[in-house]
Amino acid sequence: MNSLAAAVAAPPFLQGEGNADIHTHIERSFEAHLEALQNFIRQKSISSENVGVRECAEYLADILRRLGASAELAETDGFPVVWGFYDAGAPRTLAVYSLYDVVHVVESEWSSPPFEARVVPLAGLGKAIVGRGAVNQKGPIRALLNAMESVVAVRGKLPLNVMFVFEGEEELGSPHLPQFVARYADRLRTADGCLSPGAGQNLQGSVVLELGNKGIVYFEMEASGERMPHGPRKFDLSSYQQTVVESPVWRLVEALATLTDGNGPKLRIEELNRAVAPLTAKDRDLIRKLSGTFNPNEVWKRQFQVDSFTEDLEGEALLERYVFSPSLNIDGIWAGYTGDGVATLMPQKATAKLDLRLVPNLRALEVMPAIRRHLDERGFEDIALRELSGYDWSRTPLEAGIVETLLASYRGYGFEPSIWPLRPSGAPAYLFTGPPVSIPMIGGGLGHGARQHSVDEYLVIEGEGRIASLPQMEKFYADFLFALARG
Amino acid sequence: MNSLAAAVAAPPFLQGEGNADIHTHIERSFEAHLEALQNFIRQKSISSENVGVRECAEYLADILRRLGASAELAETDGFPVVWGFYDAGAPRTLAVYSLYDVVHVVESEWSSPPFEARVVPLAGLGKAIVGRGAVNQKGPIRALLNAMESVVAVRGKLPLNVMFVFEGEEELGSPHLPQFVARYADRLRTADGCLSPGAGQNLQGSVVLELGNKGIVYFEMEASGERMPHGPRKFDLSSYQQTVVESPVWRLVEALATLTDGNGPKLRIEELNRAVAPLTAKDRDLIRKLSGTFNPNEVWKRQFQVDSFTEDLEGEALLERYVFSPSLNIDGIWAGYTGDGVATLMPQKATAKLDLRLVPNLRALEVMPAIRRHLDERGFEDIALRELSGYDWSRTPLEAGIVETLLASYRGYGFEPSIWPLRPSGAPAYLFTGPPVSIPMIGGGLGHGARQHSVDEYLVIEGEGRIASLPQMEKFYADFLFALARG
Repeated sequence: MNSLAAAVAAPPFLQGEGNADIHTHIERSFEAHLEALQNFIRQKSISSENVGVRECAEYLADILRRLGASAELAETDGFPVVWGFYDAGAPRTLAVYSLYDVVHVVESEWSSPPFEARVVPLAGLGKAIVGRGAVNQKGPIRALLNAMESVVAVRGKLPLNVMFVFEGEEELGSPHLPQFVARYADRLRTADGCLSPGAGQNLQGSVVLELGNKGIVYFEMEASGERMPHGPRKFDLSSYQQTVVESPVWRLVEALATLTDGNGPKLRIEELNRAVAPLTAKDRDLIRKLSGTFNPNEVWKRQFQVDSFTEDLEGEALLERYVFSPSLNIDGIWAGYTGDGVATLMPQKATAKLDLRLVPNLRALEVMPAIRRHLDERGFEDIALRELSGYDWSRTPLEAGIVETLLASYRGYGFEPSIWPLRPSGAPAYLFTGPPVSIPMIGGGLGHGARQHSVDEYLVIEGEGRIASLPQMEKFYADFLFALARG
Repeated sequence: MNSLAAAVAAPPFLQGEGNADIHTHIERSFEAHLEALQNFIRQKSISSENVGVRECAEYLADILRRLGASAELAETDGFPVVWGFYDAGAPRTLAVYSLYDVVHVVESEWSSPPFEARVVPLAGLGKAIVGRGAVNQKGPIRALLNAMESVVAVRGKLPLNVMFVFEGEEELGSPHLPQFVARYADRLRTADGCLSPGAGQNLQGSVVLELGNKGIVYFEMEASGERMPHGPRKFDLSSYQQTVVESPVWRLVEALATLTDGNGPKLRIEELNRAVAPLTAKDRDLIRKLSGTFNPNEVWKRQFQVDSFTEDLEGEALLERYVFSPSLNIDGIWAGYTGDGVATLMPQKATAKLDLRLVPNLRALEVMPAIRRHLDERGFEDIALRELSGYDWSRTPLEAGIVETLLASYRGYGFEPSIWPLRPSGAPAYLFTGPPVSIPMIGGGLGHGARQHSVDEYLVIEGEGRIASLPQMEKFYADFLFALARG
């Protein structure tokens, strides 16, 4: 079934049963809700540049308080986490995790100023807000909060308790979120599940649902003459001295070459390879079903601008590699002279940045010791390793209550989601799904946006075809909250 | 015999026989000759920045004309070569090769302005001119021209014909000197030998004589997704896409790793290894003699700031490796993100700059085709190679007339030179020693200077101990010219 057939077959945007009053309130609040989103984007919060981050945290805490929640800035060694609790006196509790920080912009490259949050028409999509954070994640957060405000306005209160966790360092790799979670674990573990609000529709309007995400360990490898018995200890030497002094660049190249079979997914670090779990029958089933609704060959060739994939993989095999394979990537490498033309020197050191994507059951904590042992066993004791950040992978079972409710909500709106066992990119979800919190967690929501981290990031607010408008995103969340409350 | 013992044993600076009148003229001209050198340095000629280069060529041509030579700027596709001919009507002809360009300066780092050519005291050395070009090569050129001016002033003319070849792009790798040599080969081949004036004394005052130099091929190696069947064709991808798209950085690492045994001198490119000539009995004899006067272990450990040398080489074996081994060096490498902290991406391309030092009989023209074949045979057809510059090596036999005369001149002044079969760094001497010109060529002269290409470049002009003063440099050249004329 392709998505066009689905669009014809399924009646889009069925109203959630029994929430017509809330839906009407959402529709009537469109202008105010849109402005609330625009104001959220206008409040800069660029964590990498320390621009507006704490102000944005306070701005968000105020919104929670106006909703009726208690809210505070939970301090960490970095930017604060906005912690809020809405006590509905209800039996069920939802945790909401998201981020209020955004990545930096190169303003001159944007077609519309990134912090003005203008509404502009996008061909084939409808009208969209263009701005930094529009889809990642201020749009989805504000859609959820708009929905909650409408529920409270119409019904007096939310149908379930809500814990809010908004961090301000997700774009920095969530370095201090573990501090927060350690302190709040006893409260968080009492939640029935965790929602990470997102705009779950792709360009065609289809819904994507991800049951987890890969982990990542980001590290640097460095060869330096200082640590080599025959290397240049203090400074770059002349190139011709390479006859009698050993080169840190060759050293790094040789050490790197031992790590893979010439390509990221083919690790030669046996200790790590052994930790990778074989696919279960359920995993294979998920991949098989996914390949029925998603043809990676066509989509990715266009999206990644490639002619074909590693080992000429296609279909299920390609999806399986993408979803369940670890990969070791060189994000950057540098040494010596990198300008135009000719300069002869033997660099005194050489450095590479790498990241290893983690799949079950490869744990972040195991990675650096295993690479250290791998290098040492091959005589590369002099190669320095520096871990810069690390996340574990996270998985939530398809059978978890919050996932089943979310799926039912999507289906109620006429969408049959493509289910991805793991999202390939990292996120700190393991802090919620792993011990000691150990609650199911899922990203969800309607709506479509793209270009996160890039220029002209957008979120559609008046969609064409199957793409949800902002009010539709909000109605979906309202209905989902009630469905969750019913359990 | 160490250099201190030599300093006591040898009477320094014997007067050349029969040239007392010229020597007196040189001594009396000290101030004028010093000023002439200062003015030469003050005439900037930074070829990499196109600052003053042509002006310097004209300045130098004028000096030749005032000496009595014909002089012209021989145009090339780059900066002109200053060509001059002094016709003494003599049976013998000397060619003089040098460079009038200098490398750029970071003026703020100099203790004395690099183009003021101030005379400053240097502890243990005497007084020196500090300035860009002082030793490389304006000082030695001007010392030779000063000597010639005194010879002409006292004797009416030079004792032999002189061809002058001063290029303005040596510091750029002499890209257009072959054009000049091709046009002037028929004249150059009639010279009896070629002198490259230099300040041949080291810090201890010992004289170094080099019978040739290594060649070099400088090139870039690049892996790009565009040329890889499964690579990112257009732009950097996300790091996690490394599962299904191949990484150009890994590709470059793998290709580089095939080229050496993890270190520059240990080439794995068999075709090039086969071209390296085994050492002759004469070569071994030169190395053995050199190791008697020069202890590389001590000098280089201090100079290079290393603890020990590749394979713990010492003495003769170390010298042999340094002098007669090719080496492949990575001058620079770069790809992707090289800033602080974390950025996850798969770079679309990766590039390295390399240079291969050439020893007999490894020819520059053979290098790129051999590396191409080496890579192709291993399936690396996609790795691009770009040659940026190349020189062949050059050797002049110890028995050549100009070398024997130079050695005799040194000995007449009380110096027993350390003879190096090859200098490890590149120079365009092969254009003179190789066909079609094929004349012996030698660098020579007294005097000491250092820090070429670095800050506070200097040439001693009033030396202490065994280090020659500017007048002594000039007297030596005058005597050498007469010795050459006698043949």
